[in-house]
Amino acid sequence: MIASQRIRGVLAPVVTPFKADLAPDPRRFIAHCKWLLSQNCGLAVFGTNSEANSLSMEERAMLLDELVAAGIDPARMMPGTGCCSIMETVKLTKQAVGNGCAGVLMLPPFYYKDVSEEGLYRYFSEVVQRVGDARLKIYLYHIPPVAVVGITTGLVERLLAAYPNAIAGMKDSSGDWNNTKTFLDAFAKSGFDVFVGSESFLLAGMRNGGVGTISATANVNPAAIYELYVECIRNQTSDIGDQTSNIEHQTSKMERQQADLNVVREVFSSRKFPSMIAALKQAIAIYADDPAWRTVRPPLVELTPEQTKTLAAELKAISFTMPGVRRES
Amino acid sequence: MIASQRIRGVLAPVVTPFKADLAPDPRRFIAHCKWLLSQNCGLAVFGTNSEANSLSMEERAMLLDELVAAGIDPARMMPGTGCCSIMETVKLTKQAVGNGCAGVLMLPPFYYKDVSEEGLYRYFSEVVQRVGDARLKIYLYHIPPVAVVGITTGLVERLLAAYPNAIAGMKDSSGDWNNTKTFLDAFAKSGFDVFVGSESFLLAGMRNGGVGTISATANVNPAAIYELYVECIRNQTSDIGDQTSNIEHQTSKMERQQADLNVVREVFSSRKFPSMIAALKQAIAIYADDPAWRTVRPPLVELTPEQTKTLAAELKAISFTMPGVRRES
Repeated sequence: MIASQRIRGVLAPVVTPFKADLAPDPRRFIAHCKWLLSQNCGLAVFGTNSEANSLSMEERAMLLDELVAAGIDPARMMPGTGCCSIMETVKLTKQAVGNGCAGVLMLPPFYYKDVSEEGLYRYFSEVVQRVGDARLKIYLYHIPPVAVVGITTGLVERLLAAYPNAIAGMKDSSGDWNNTKTFLDAFAKSGFDVFVGSESFLLAGMRNGGVGTISATANVNPAAIYELYVECIRNQTSDIGDQTSNIEHQTSKMERQQADLNVVREVFSSRKFPSMIAALKQAIAIYADDPAWRTVRPPLVELTPEQTKTLAAELKAISFTMPGVRRES
Repeated sequence: MIASQRIRGVLAPVVTPFKADLAPDPRRFIAHCKWLLSQNCGLAVFGTNSEANSLSMEERAMLLDELVAAGIDPARMMPGTGCCSIMETVKLTKQAVGNGCAGVLMLPPFYYKDVSEEGLYRYFSEVVQRVGDARLKIYLYHIPPVAVVGITTGLVERLLAAYPNAIAGMKDSSGDWNNTKTFLDAFAKSGFDVFVGSESFLLAGMRNGGVGTISATANVNPAAIYELYVECIRNQTSDIGDQTSNIEHQTSKMERQQADLNVVREVFSSRKFPSMIAALKQAIAIYADDPAWRTVRPPLVELTPEQTKTLAAELKAISFTMPGVRRES
């Protein structure tokens, strides 16, 4: 079965480190990717949390080349490749597919608003046809709070009918469980893999046919998120003959895990910080003892010293750790 | 006075012709630019109506090179250069400045929403410093209905204070006269040139210190828009000793001109058509007798045959013409 060979589980939209002059920093990028892999976390490089759209095409291509050259397994990668221009999306997608990446996470073209479903269908059709590679696996990226332009069930239906092999699934970052549920109910059984865009929906997603999560917080809390994922899988495959008390035990364990994940996420998503991206990078700077990780590209701004203190205190208060992330000196 | 040498008047965000395979068509692009110049219309190439964000960086660079090679005066050009990435904005801006373009029209980085004024300030600061050219003239592009991220008076104030030579003005495509008036009142006297983003605000803009318009409809109706602009300038410079009756005559003439422009704009901006861009291109296809002009890049869609008939009939009903645009066979 093809579907079972697909990438699933927990992926991080890998944050992109910058040098003082704002150039991307391949060395730190590779190190962070290796750490994430060691935590059973796949690499959705060049996502929203990666500041991918703040990178140039050349910088994105260079960073992917660097990862591959560093021996990082492309089967664990799902690079973001969706640009406003068909030509640029095709170029990045070809590079990813050519390198054997497990899939690509594709934003819809996000400049024009109120575009028609027909227009979006034509956009993705052009991309599939121009990439022209049987290995292509597209995960549609639905993130209306940022891209504004979204993915509809009607669009997925048309794309799946036309390109059943290329259209592999989606990431739903709507933040709206009802929306995720709608897509799961409509398409999960046709082998369309739905990743929830936040681990706060991981348990609910897994209970309803989802395949995992691609979540910002996986950059800092991958192991715990993966543990819940594994527990969900274990629960799905456990014998029907299990005793009721055992099922109840498992259920309460998963719910406790989910609640613990939510506590961590709440710290990072606080409106106290200028953005979750800046907060995640600041946490890595703290736990890796590597202040260079603070840097974000404008229009984002890093945390102020005051906000940094708040973040450090809040993480300490919940006994947050990032085992093994500390920079080797 | 430096300000008087700046580009002013009527500019078109030049629509970009595509071949059947969606490649940009330099030959038709040059021809349309020449026609616009013959109608006293400047060239805001690579704007929203140019589908600039649907082009790759290379395509934009190539098209600008082609225009320059065709002998089109860069002093009449204000290319759009604002991308989500500082690096790409700098690259396109350097090319425009290096070619002697009158200015650049710069979108704010439009992927992340709810970004801070500080973040946007840092973005534009980085661009100005990295371009590092005394000839740079930036026109900030405020188009919240599309980019969502907008330009605030606070941002303009900070940028003008830091870069009084580089920050030359703005295009206000908010569609909200109160917003335009706010910017005019705050900055017009400091030599900050405000272009209204639609000729429907041209008379009001010119009466309140504006310098002209950069408007989609100038692609098809440049001469009439320019006539109102000239009338406004003439009225500004006419002797104070003029008789009241003469002033009244001029005023009613300008208001009639404005009303006539609005009638044309109304046809193109009708919700009957999938987008104003597609309607403008269809009109050029009709009046130049050149169906290739219909083509748009996804996610936009061209007019259906039915919509095309409606557009043709409505333009005929208002006796619309595009003198001299007919393709030489």
